[in-house]
Formats: sequence, structure tokens, C-alpha cells
Amino acid sequence: MKKKSIGISGLAAYLPPYRVWLEDWCNWTGNQWPKTREVIGRSFRVRGPNQSVYTMAATAVMRLITQYDIDPSRVKFLGLGTESSTDNSAGAIIVKGMVDRALIAAGKPPIARSCEVPEFKHACLGGVYGMKGAIRHLALDGAGGQAIVVCADIAEYARGSSGEPTQGAGAIAMLLEEDPKLAEVDLIRAGAASDYRVMDFRKPMLRFCGQDRNETHQVQDFPVFNGKYSTTCYIDETLHALSDMYEKRSLNPIEYMHSLKTVFMHRPYRRMPETGWALAYLFALSSGDAADRAELAAYCYEAGIEPNALLDEMSSKPKVAELASPERLHYEAYPLAMAVFRIFRASRHYRREILDKMALGSDTMLDLGNLYTAALPAWMAAGFEQALDEDRFEVGEEILTLGYGSGDAAEVIPFFMAPDWRAASSKIGFAGAMDHAIDINADQYAALHAGHKAPGLDFLPREEFVIEKVGRSEERQFQDLGIEYYRYVS
Amino acid sequence: MKKKSIGISGLAAYLPPYRVWLEDWCNWTGNQWPKTREVIGRSFRVRGPNQSVYTMAATAVMRLITQYDIDPSRVKFLGLGTESSTDNSAGAIIVKGMVDRALIAAGKPPIARSCEVPEFKHACLGGVYGMKGAIRHLALDGAGGQAIVVCADIAEYARGSSGEPTQGAGAIAMLLEEDPKLAEVDLIRAGAASDYRVMDFRKPMLRFCGQDRNETHQVQDFPVFNGKYSTTCYIDETLHALSDMYEKRSLNPIEYMHSLKTVFMHRPYRRMPETGWALAYLFALSSGDAADRAELAAYCYEAGIEPNALLDEMSSKPKVAELASPERLHYEAYPLAMAVFRIFRASRHYRREILDKMALGSDTMLDLGNLYTAALPAWMAAGFEQALDEDRFEVGEEILTLGYGSGDAAEVIPFFMAPDWRAASSKIGFAGAMDHAIDINADQYAALHAGHKAPGLDFLPREEFVIEKVGRSEERQFQDLGIEYYRYVS
Repeated sequence: MKKKSIGISGLAAYLPPYRVWLEDWCNWTGNQWPKTREVIGRSFRVRGPNQSVYTMAATAVMRLITQYDIDPSRVKFLGLGTESSTDNSAGAIIVKGMVDRALIAAGKPPIARSCEVPEFKHACLGGVYGMKGAIRHLALDGAGGQAIVVCADIAEYARGSSGEPTQGAGAIAMLLEEDPKLAEVDLIRAGAASDYRVMDFRKPMLRFCGQDRNETHQVQDFPVFNGKYSTTCYIDETLHALSDMYEKRSLNPIEYMHSLKTVFMHRPYRRMPETGWALAYLFALSSGDAADRAELAAYCYEAGIEPNALLDEMSSKPKVAELASPERLHYEAYPLAMAVFRIFRASRHYRREILDKMALGSDTMLDLGNLYTAALPAWMAAGFEQALDEDRFEVGEEILTLGYGSGDAAEVIPFFMAPDWRAASSKIGFAGAMDHAIDINADQYAALHAGHKAPGLDFLPREEFVIEKVGRSEERQFQDLGIEYYRYVS
Repeated sequence: MKKKSIGISGLAAYLPPYRVWLEDWCNWTGNQWPKTREVIGRSFRVRGPNQSVYTMAATAVMRLITQYDIDPSRVKFLGLGTESSTDNSAGAIIVKGMVDRALIAAGKPPIARSCEVPEFKHACLGGVYGMKGAIRHLALDGAGGQAIVVCADIAEYARGSSGEPTQGAGAIAMLLEEDPKLAEVDLIRAGAASDYRVMDFRKPMLRFCGQDRNETHQVQDFPVFNGKYSTTCYIDETLHALSDMYEKRSLNPIEYMHSLKTVFMHRPYRRMPETGWALAYLFALSSGDAADRAELAAYCYEAGIEPNALLDEMSSKPKVAELASPERLHYEAYPLAMAVFRIFRASRHYRREILDKMALGSDTMLDLGNLYTAALPAWMAAGFEQALDEDRFEVGEEILTLGYGSGDAAEVIPFFMAPDWRAASSKIGFAGAMDHAIDINADQYAALHAGHKAPGLDFLPREEFVIEKVGRSEERQFQDLGIEYYRYVS
């Protein structure tokens, strides 16, 4: 029996309109704009006063249904990937309820009554796990149907923290089915990795204790994080997931990397995926032929590092979780490789081998900030749209996606562009979703960040969900404390 | 190509030792013991001072690995189903980290480095969604490997609330693979349903605001709930999931129900599954032959209800979510059927058609309380063990499982007993897990419930995970606020 082709047929995005320019933010906070631009990006979005992860997710799903003319009654799997939930029990069913009500009001059928509604949690990787779950469903008991997975998150950090410029908010919904229109997603040829990393990035519920119930009823979901250690974790986990894929597919790493033209990775900010892919490239060189090792040796020479010492380090499999203590948190897991990387970054090969392969959609991504689970699918959406404009993909071409979630786990999944990828990409509408923006000032940013109403923001939502009110009742006869009631503004 | 048989090969349980007898609790609180025994059960467990959903889950996984002599390096999928998480970003990876460290300390290999670690959230149904996810993984890209899904929850309610006697805590881990030893789990013949129900049971994060960080660093995770409405939701969703299965399998509902000998359902407390299955039986009678409809008409006659009025109600597909308001919350979605049910419950048929089919494991379940996601697998574990003692299953016999999660969604999944089910059931060790108990008094219960240290409880854990400390640092150089550090007491 021939393996069925299953994958993505469509993507749709929702971003809140409230935009902070990082150049403005640098002025407000005394940070350096040139460095911020280089490492992080250009702007990010802030969640509005009547928005939550559920309003963003449901709006993205509505757009997906409209843009791809989906018959909702064929959808038997609706997955939500998020780490910004505000209910510890219900998840995707909330999104289904919102969408169903709006569809019925518009005279359309609701999503199937027999739809499965799991929420997937694992830091920034929940959406990828959701996508894998949907594909496997379509391969077994969901054959012939359709699935929707929506990735939605609100990345918010305490003001004055090093994470503050890497904030963001948004949702990406994807349509999955057999004989996909956009790209086949090949799980059999994918690689995975996981290892517990204690405190590189966490969201213990204890953070909510002691918070006021502020006027918009938002809880502030600022993570516990340790930046330098997080970078170490990201790199190490990505390397392990790639190794797993190389082994499963019997790939020669450096030949494979040379053959790829496009890579999309989890992108908390501009520099992180570049660093991750560059380290993967240096590791691949180390297992290549004489010419590859000569290239690596040249970087070593310039860095003043003995090539054999680097090779020893690369095969050392450091136990990264052992760095999870106050004393060792700033240690490098791969100190020699990082030193060689800094030389490589300044070399002429860096653009061709690293930057060019992540060029598609990159400029758009400078205005997105971190979307956690939605960051990788957002980059894909932006990249597919640019690829259409520039006619950059061939049918059947392999595109590599690398998902990552702190804590840690990583997934490396190859996509193969479908015959209809151009028509499917033309419906993504990502540039349109980005266009919708209102630049906010320092006072408005401070207010929205604190969960207060922002002065002078009188934007009226249209074709999106809003929180109409939040329940306050704790009576024995009727309880709805903290439950959001929604409205679709058509 | 023949469809591969995939399902469950093993089950293992962990329950905290601290036990509250409901008869004692009735004395402490002035509640009626006979009614409590009849509707709810006999006793429940309380989470200990150094326990969380992660310690319970990891202990259950360790037991599963030991009892079934699993090679952890073959496990490529570790799913966690819970609605009692205390981290909003990391989930199953925490369990993996704990188990890996304990395995390595015992000289065993850790779980595969390439293991996938999703957490599944949807009220009491997260574990079933996790099981479905694992089975589909084994059917596609995980072929030839093994998967573990662990369901763990802490059901706690405010003191004095109507939910208080339905508390509970525990974890059940399950091993999944091809050619399963215990039972094939047939997703293709399963039925599903979902519909958003707003506030029958929710856990908005806003509940945590204003809480103290108490001495054991527990957040109190008391749900927002509306009891009568929740019962309506449970019944309606179960009926819809069954309808979906009947349709997919072209089953005659009442013939199918008569043919089944054993049913396991989500069990928040004793009476709920009985009521749910009884309503399903009455609905099935309504679409049966002349004799079935005569049986139903007899109950109607005794209830003083016109049979045609009941049939109209049964085909009315009430919009249950429209009852989600203070004014309508106490309305019945199926008032006539509920009246007929009360007559049926007193009839001689009720024992044979309802109680006998959920008899396996039922007595054990009276001492379990509500385990949320773990409630259904716990009942299965107890039932399989009793079935072994009494040699009650035939190989290939169909057992029906009905999972349910508030909010709402339901899953109806047939199991088919495997040739080796006796050997696999002999390793569950559920009675042993139940044996380990310490009866606590009113003061100790009050202290544990409030997250305080309990006077006179000097129990020493053995072969289980405990929380060693909880991080408190919020420095820029090092953050671990609220992160639990664990220890395996061997």
C-alpha cells in the first residue's frame, strides 16, 4: 500500500493591531537601537485590552475557514497549541465554541459535533505536537477528513527584564488533510529530541499568586527565565533532533545541509535561529569530508583553537541539565564551538550557508516579535508568501522545519512542496494580516502591558472575536468567576 | 494490508497514602453518610505535602517500567494528561526528567533521547486524548516502538462546597504498543463528541490571583463549577458520542448495549456513570423494536409520562449551552427522560442492564474519589484485576470505555481483550497500590487541604518521587521562582 501523502493545505494568521516599534522602545528605555535591531528585530505586537489567547486563536480559525472555503462539518480534529492558556482545564473546546457560534450566526454549518478538541502544551513546541497529532489522526481513524491546528500565544515579559524587547502576540491556524495543497509533512523522515532542563524557561502557576485581579482581568504571565542558559538549551536540543533525523534517514549531514535551500526554525528573535543553524552547520562540517574539515579547521585557526579539541567537544554530549544551578548557569555547553561560531559569523560563507537559507519571510519576521508556538508557523506563512512572489520553490522541493520548546524538546520535520503550493500560498493573506496595525506610544504600551485600559486607544475591532465580559460570580447557586464571555464582531 | 492491532499492554497506579473516610468526613461536616455512600463512595485520597501532579505521574511511570520490565530506550512517546498542572509551559518533559534521573541512578537506560513529550489538556479527557495520540503515533511514524501515557490529577474543592466529598488524587500510567498484551484499542470504531458548555466546570487562572504562597508552595486549584448543569452536560455529551459510534459502526443501539457485558466510564463519583449509562439505555430502547419500546412505555406509564412526548424530547437535540445562564442553569435538558430514569432506577431491570455491566472494579472505585483524567483508566485497572480473579473476559470480547471531559467533550472507544490479557492484568498491581494508606483525622485533613504541614503525619515515602524544595529566586542572574526540585526516594 502506498503511503498516503498528508500535510498542510492552508495557513491563516491573526495579529493584534497594537504595535510597538523597537526603535521607540529603545528611546523609552535607554536601550541601544542598533544592537536591538541586529539581535532582535524591528517591532512587536501587544495584546489588546479585550483579547486573550482564545480570541486570537478563534479569529485565526475563522479566517482559515473563510480563506480556504472549508466545510467546517468535515473538521473532526481541532487542536490548540499554546503556553498562554488562562484556563487550566478547558482549552481547544473554547475555541470551537466561539467559532461554532460565529459560523451559525453567519448561516454556515458549525465544526463537526464529533470533533476532537485536545490542547497541546509544551512551551513553544505545542503547536508542532498538535500538527503531528492531527497528521497521525488523518493517517488512521481520521482518513478522508480534515483537521485544524491553531497555534496562539502571548509572549510577555516583565518591564526592565532582558526579555522585554522579545515580546509578541498572535495566532496561526493551519488546515491539514490528505493530498495537501501546500506541503506534505513527512513524519516518518522527521527527527525528535527531549531532555528536561529545569529552569531555562518556565511558567509555574505560583507566579499568579499575589497578583491583583486588574481591571481587564488579565493575569500577567511573565515567565521565569535564564537567558544565556536558554540559548545553550536551544542549540543543544536542535543539534540532537537533527542527529536523530540524520540517523533515521542515513543522511550525510553536511551534504544534506548544502542541498537545502530553505529552513524555517523556531524564532524567539532574529539572532537565535541563525545561531542555531550555524552551530548545526559547524557540527555537520566536523563529520564531512576532507574539504569540509579543512573549512572547519580554517575557522578554528582564526579563532586560535586546536581543531582536535573542537572535535572532542563536539562528540562530548555535554549534560546540559547539569548547568542548571546558580553557579554553573553561565557556563557554555560548547565553549569552543561558540568561539569558532563567532569567527564563522564574520566569514563570507556565513551569508550563503546560513542567512540565505533563512531569507524567505525573514524581513517580515522582524516585525513579529516572539509568538512562542505560533512563531515557527508564522515564519512559514511569511516565507511561503514571499516564495510565491518570487517563485522560489519547485514542486517536491524539501523545506526543513525545526520546532523547539524550552524545557526542552525539539522537532525537525521535512516538508515537501505540493503541486498546488502556489494556489494554496496565494490564500494565506499574511501580508494583509500584518498590515492591520496601530502604533502605540509609551503611555499606551505601559497601560496595555499592565493590563489596564490604554489612553486614547479607540480602535474598533471588525471581523474578530473580543472578550465581552469576564464572570465574577462565586455564589453556590451560580459560579463563573474568571470565565470569559466572547463576541464575534462581524 | 491488514490493519495493525495497537492498544494497551500494561497499567500501573500511584495513589497518595493519605486517606479520608467519607463516614468520618460526614461526621466532621454534618453531612449524611447513607446518602454520601450511595451517591459518592466510601473514601478518597489527599495529596501529601511534598507531592504534585508531577511526582504522582513520575512514580506511576516508574512503576509501569518496573512492573512490565520495559526497556525505556524504546519509548518514543511520553504523553501526560492532566488538568492539575502547576506549570503553564512545561508538562510531560518534567515527568521525563524525573524518571530519567531515577532510571540512571538505578543503573538503567533513560527514556529515549528522541522521545516526544506532549501534555494533553481537556478536563478529565486529556488522558484519553493522550492515549489516542500515542496509538496514532504507533500506527504511523512510531511503528515498532512503545509509548507511555500517564494520567494524573488532583481533584480538590473548597471546603463546604458540594464538590468536597468528590475529591481525590492519583496517577495511572499505561503502556501502548503493537500486538498489545492487554487489549486492542480500536479508534476506527470509536465515537466522539464535543460542544462548548461555558461554565459547567472550569479552572480560570484568575482563581490563583490573591492566593498566598503558602508554606508548601501549593496553589489551591479549586474549580469553578455548577453541579446540576454539569450532570446535564455529562449525559448529553455521552449520548452524542455514543450516537457517533452507532452511526460509524451501523449498530443497532439496544442490541449493542445488550451484547456488552462490561462498560468503564468516566467516574467523578459513584452515581454519575450509572445515570449516564442508564440514560443511554433509555435512549437506545426508544430506537429499538416493539418489545424495547414496550419496555420504555412501561417506565413511562409508571412515571405518568406520555411515551410520544418522551420520544419527541429524545429527538429534540437540546442546545445545552443555552442553559449556561444563572436563570436557566437548573433546567433539565431532558426533563421527561430524567423522570422516566427515576422509575427505571427502581425497576428490576436496572441491576441487570446498568449496575451489572459496571460491576467489575466498582467496589474498589468506592475508595478512589475523583481522579479526573485518571478516573477512567483507574477503573479499567481495577476492573481488569477483578476480571482476572474471576476469569470474566473472553479473548476478543468487546469492552466499552466512555471518556468525558467537562467543557465538554466525550469519547467512546471499544477495547478488545487480547490473548495475553490475563498475564498482562496480573502485573497491574492495583490492589497493592490501594493497600498503601494512612487514615487521617479532621485536623490533618484541614491542614493538607489548606497546603499546610499536617500535625502528626510522619510517614516516610519509599520508592516514590517527592518535592525536595521549591525555588524562590527572582534575581536577574538566576530565576527559579516556583520551580519544583524533585528527589526519588528509593
